Amino acid sequence: MRVNAAGTHSGENTLAGRHVLSAEDFSAAEISLVLNTARVLEQDVNGRRDFRRLLQGKTLTTAFFEPSTRTRLSFESAMLRLGGQVSSIQYGRSSSSEKGESLQDMGRVLSGYADVVAMRHPENGSVAAFASTASVPVINAGDGANQHPTQALLDLYTIFREKRRFDGLTIGFIGDLKYSRTVHSLISLLRHYQVTLHFISHPLLALPDSVKGSLADGRQSLQESPELGKALRDLDVLYVTRVQKERFADPLEYEQANRNYQLNRDTLQHSKPDLILMHPLPRLQEIHSELDSDPRAKYFRQAQNGVYVRMALLALLLAQFPPHRAWATD
Amino acid sequence: MRVNAAGTHSGENTLAGRHVLSAEDFSAAEISLVLNTARVLEQDVNGRRDFRRLLQGKTLTTAFFEPSTRTRLSFESAMLRLGGQVSSIQYGRSSSSEKGESLQDMGRVLSGYADVVAMRHPENGSVAAFASTASVPVINAGDGANQHPTQALLDLYTIFREKRRFDGLTIGFIGDLKYSRTVHSLISLLRHYQVTLHFISHPLLALPDSVKGSLADGRQSLQESPELGKALRDLDVLYVTRVQKERFADPLEYEQANRNYQLNRDTLQHSKPDLILMHPLPRLQEIHSELDSDPRAKYFRQAQNGVYVRMALLALLLAQFPPHRAWATD
Amino acid sequence: MRVNAAGTHSGENTLAGRHVLSAEDFSAAEISLVLNTARVLEQDVNGRRDFRRLLQGKTLTTAFFEPSTRTRLSFESAMLRLGGQVSSIQYGRSSSSEKGESLQDMGRVLSGYADVVAMRHPENGSVAAFASTASVPVINAGDGANQHPTQALLDLYTIFREKRRFDGLTIGFIGDLKYSRTVHSLISLLRHYQVTLHFISHPLLALPDSVKGSLADGRQSLQESPELGKALRDLDVLYVTRVQKERFADPLEYEQANRNYQLNRDTLQHSKPDLILMHPLPRLQEIHSELDSDPRAKYFRQAQNGVYVRMALLALLLAQFPPHRAWATD
Repeated sequence: MRVNAAGTHSGENTLAGRHVLSAEDFSAAEISLVLNTARVLEQDVNGRRDFRRLLQGKTLTTAFFEPSTRTRLSFESAMLRLGGQVSSIQYGRSSSSEKGESLQDMGRVLSGYADVVAMRHPENGSVAAFASTASVPVINAGDGANQHPTQALLDLYTIFREKRRFDGLTIGFIGDLKYSRTVHSLISLLRHYQVTLHFISHPLLALPDSVKGSLADGRQSLQESPELGKALRDLDVLYVTRVQKERFADPLEYEQANRNYQLNRDTLQHSKPDLILMHPLPRLQEIHSELDSDPRAKYFRQAQNGVYVRMALLALLLAQFPPHRAWATD
Repeated sequence: MRVNAAGTHSGENTLAGRHVLSAEDFSAAEISLVLNTARVLEQDVNGRRDFRRLLQGKTLTTAFFEPSTRTRLSFESAMLRLGGQVSSIQYGRSSSSEKGESLQDMGRVLSGYADVVAMRHPENGSVAAFASTASVPVINAGDGANQHPTQALLDLYTIFREKRRFDGLTIGFIGDLKYSRTVHSLISLLRHYQVTLHFISHPLLALPDSVKGSLADGRQSLQESPELGKALRDLDVLYVTRVQKERFADPLEYEQANRNYQLNRDTLQHSKPDLILMHPLPRLQEIHSELDSDPRAKYFRQAQNGVYVRMALLALLLAQFPPHRAWATD
Repeated sequence: MRVNAAGTHSGENTLAGRHVLSAEDFSAAEISLVLNTARVLEQDVNGRRDFRRLLQGKTLTTAFFEPSTRTRLSFESAMLRLGGQVSSIQYGRSSSSEKGESLQDMGRVLSGYADVVAMRHPENGSVAAFASTASVPVINAGDGANQHPTQALLDLYTIFREKRRFDGLTIGFIGDLKYSRTVHSLISLLRHYQVTLHFISHPLLALPDSVKGSLADGRQSLQESPELGKALRDLDVLYVTRVQKERFADPLEYEQANRNYQLNRDTLQHSKPDLILMHPLPRLQEIHSELDSDPRAKYFRQAQNGVYVRMALLALLLAQFPPHRAWATD
C-alpha cells in the first residue's frame, strides 16, 4: 500500500504524493517525519516562523460518508490554519453514491476538484478502493472497523510530546480492546518501539489474537489483566476507550462489561505522578469529569494535537514542507 | 455572564475575548461600540479603508444544532468578508452529541479547532454550558426560546441606521409577543434608551409579565393594544413578527390570532411617512408583498444589516478592531 | 431572460452581472466567450499567468435544495481555485423554505450574503423565481427537469477541447433522450453550429418533439435510430446517458429499455479511432469499466472540464475577466 497517488514508490523519508490508508504503511523514519513536523508546526502556531500560507491555493475535500464532527473539523482546521481551503461532502445522503456510483469512479472525479481528500466511510477497504483511482493524495479518516491512521498518529504524537521518548515506556489500554479501531491502529504504530503493553479488559472485549500477532517480533513485552488493579503502578500511559453499548446484543452484558472500567480519582490514586491519561473522545462515564482538571488528564490536549498532526500530514503529502530549506527528519 | 473566554473580566469599552450569550450582557457603552463598529464596516464595504483582511488567518466554526440558514450564512458571510475562514457543523445529526457527549466536553474540543464559535441549539442554556469550558469566544446564535443576542443587535442597528437616535422614539411590536425570542431580546437592549414601547397583540400572545418587568426602571413608557388601530399614527418603528402555527394546539385558534395582524398598504395608510417597518424574517402573510417596494419597508435591509453587526462582533471579540490606531467608541 | 442582476441588458460580448438560467440565453458570441475563457484558465492552472487571486474577497453561495455532490463541489472548486470563498446551503432541510418562505424573499436575503449564487432546486422555474429578486448573479445548477446550463457548457467545452471545431461534426446521443435534462440543454447550445445529430434510443425514451422543434432552423441535420449499429461509423462524438430506473413504473420495462444501450469494447469496435465518448456521470452499467483506459473515453476529463467552465463563468459574471487588459473573445 506504500504507493503514492501517481502509482510510483516514494523515497524513504518523504510522504509527498502518498496516500495515507493504514497505520501499517508507515516506517519508523516516516513516523518520525510526521511527529517532528507536527512539533515544528505546533511550536510555530503562536511563534516565530509563519506557516499560515504554506498551503495557499490548495484545496482539501473532506468526504465523510458517516458522521464524525470531531475528525472532520480537525482536518478542516488543519487545512485552514496552513492557508488552504476546504470543501466538504457529508453523509452520503448528499452524494451520488446513492445512485450506485462506484468508489473508483468517485475517486477519479473528486481528484479533479481537490488537491487532497480526507475520507471516512462505514465499510472496510472503501477508502483504499477510492484511492486506487484517485490522482491526488487520499487520507483514510476511518473506514469501518478497519483503520483510522491519523488518530493513531495523533495518539502517538501525544505520547511523544508528553514523554519525549517511546522506548522503555509501559502503556496500558483499558476498555474495549476487541472492537476499538483506535487501539488497534495505535498498537500498529507502537510495534516500532521497545515498549511494554498492558491490556486491561473484560474477557468479552479482549484484544484479538490477530492484533497481538502483529506484535510478535519480540521488541514488545505484552501483559493482560481483567482489572486495572496493580497494573496501574507501572503505567506511564493509560489509554482509555469507551465500551460501546451498540457492541452488545444484551444490555445487561453491556452494564457488566462497562462498570468495572470507569476511572475516577480513587481508582487512579496509586498511579505514577506523571502518568498520562488518554482517550480518543467522545468520553462518557469511562472517565469521571472530576479528573478533567487533574494534571494527568491529557485527553483534551490529545484532541488538540490532532490538528498539528493533520497539519503535518497535509503539508508533507502536498510536498510543501520543509519550506524552502533543508530540514532534518530525526 | 459578562466574562471573557479566559474567565477574567474585560474592560468597559472592549469586547475582546468575550462570550456573547445574552442581550442583557451588554452595557450601553458596549452596545454603542458594536453599532459604531458595524457602521464603519458597512460604510467601508465599497469604501476607502479596506477591512477585507482584518481576520486573515482566523477561523469561525458555526455549530448549528438546529437548522437556521439565514443566521448561519449571515455569520459565515461576515467572517469571509473580513478575510477569515469558516468551518461548519450542522444539525446535530453529524455530531458526537448523538453519542451522548456533554456540551462541556464539546466546548473544550471545538476550542482547539477554531478562533471563535457561533452556536445555535434547541435547548435553553445550552450555549452557556458549551461556553463555560470553551477557551475561545462563543456567540449565542439562538438557544431555544431563551436568547438570540445578535438578532437583537442587528434590529437595534437597523433602527440606529435609519433614525440616528433612540431617545424619543415610539416603537411598536405586533404579532406574537409571547413566544418571540427576537422581540424579548430587542426589548432587553431597548431598556438602555428613553423610548415609548407599544405592544399590539392578541391576548393569547401578549408580552409576558417577566419581560415587561425587565423594563420597570421608569425610562420607558409602555402601552398595550389588541389592535394596530390608532396606535399606528404615533409609531416611528413597527416591528412585525410571525404568528407561528406550531405555537397553537388548535389550528382554528391560530387562524383567529393571525388574521388581525396582517399588514398591507391599507392597514398602514395612516402611518408617519418615515415609519420604518421591520421583520426578523422569514415572512409569510403577516406583511403583504405589495409593501416590499414601499420606502417604509426595511426588512430586507435589516437582514443585510445582520452581516455588518456580525462583522463588528467578530472583529471586536477577536480584538482586531480598531486596526492599528485609536478609535473613538461613541 | 437575458437580463443582468440589476435588471438592465448587458452588452453583446460580456456576461458581467448576468444571471445564467438557461442554455438558451447564450448567443454564439457569448458561448465563445465562455469556452475561450475556460481554455485560458485551464491552460494556466499549471501555467504562466496566475489567476489564483482573481476572485479574492468574493463569496459564492451554493444553495442546493436537492443533493448533487458533483455539481456542488465543481462550483466550489472553481470558486476556491480563483481565490474566492464559499458558503453552502444543502438539502432544503436546513433552510427556511420549510417555514414557507418564498423563493423571491430568499433571493433578496441571500443577495446580501454573497457575490454570486449557484442554485439547484427540484422544481422547474424555481431558480428563475429566486433570481427575479436577487441583486447578485444567479447560476442555475439544475432546476428539476428544466435546465442545467453549466452542464451543457462543460459538455460543449469538452467537444471544443478535443475536436477544436463544431461545424461538420456528427454527434450521437444514446440512452434516455426523453427525460435527460443534460441532453436537452446540450442540444440547445448545438443549435448555433452546423452539426449532424444522431439520436439513438428505445422508442419509449425518444427525444421529445419539442426539443427537436428547437433545432428546426435548417443548419442541423437530424437522424434517429433504435440501435447504435451502423450509425457508430459516422460518429465523432458519442454522448451516453443513464437510463434511470426511477423513470419507469415497471422494472421489467426498465430492464428492456436499458439492456440494448450498454457500451463496451465490442460494441465500439467499429467506431472512428478518434471518436470521443462522453457521459455526464455518475455512470452505472451503460459504459463498461473496460473502456475507462481507452483513449476514446473522455468522461472523466469531461467532469474535470466542469471546473474550468465554472471558473470562466464565475470570473465573467463577476466582471473580473479579462484581468486588466484587452482580451479577444473569439
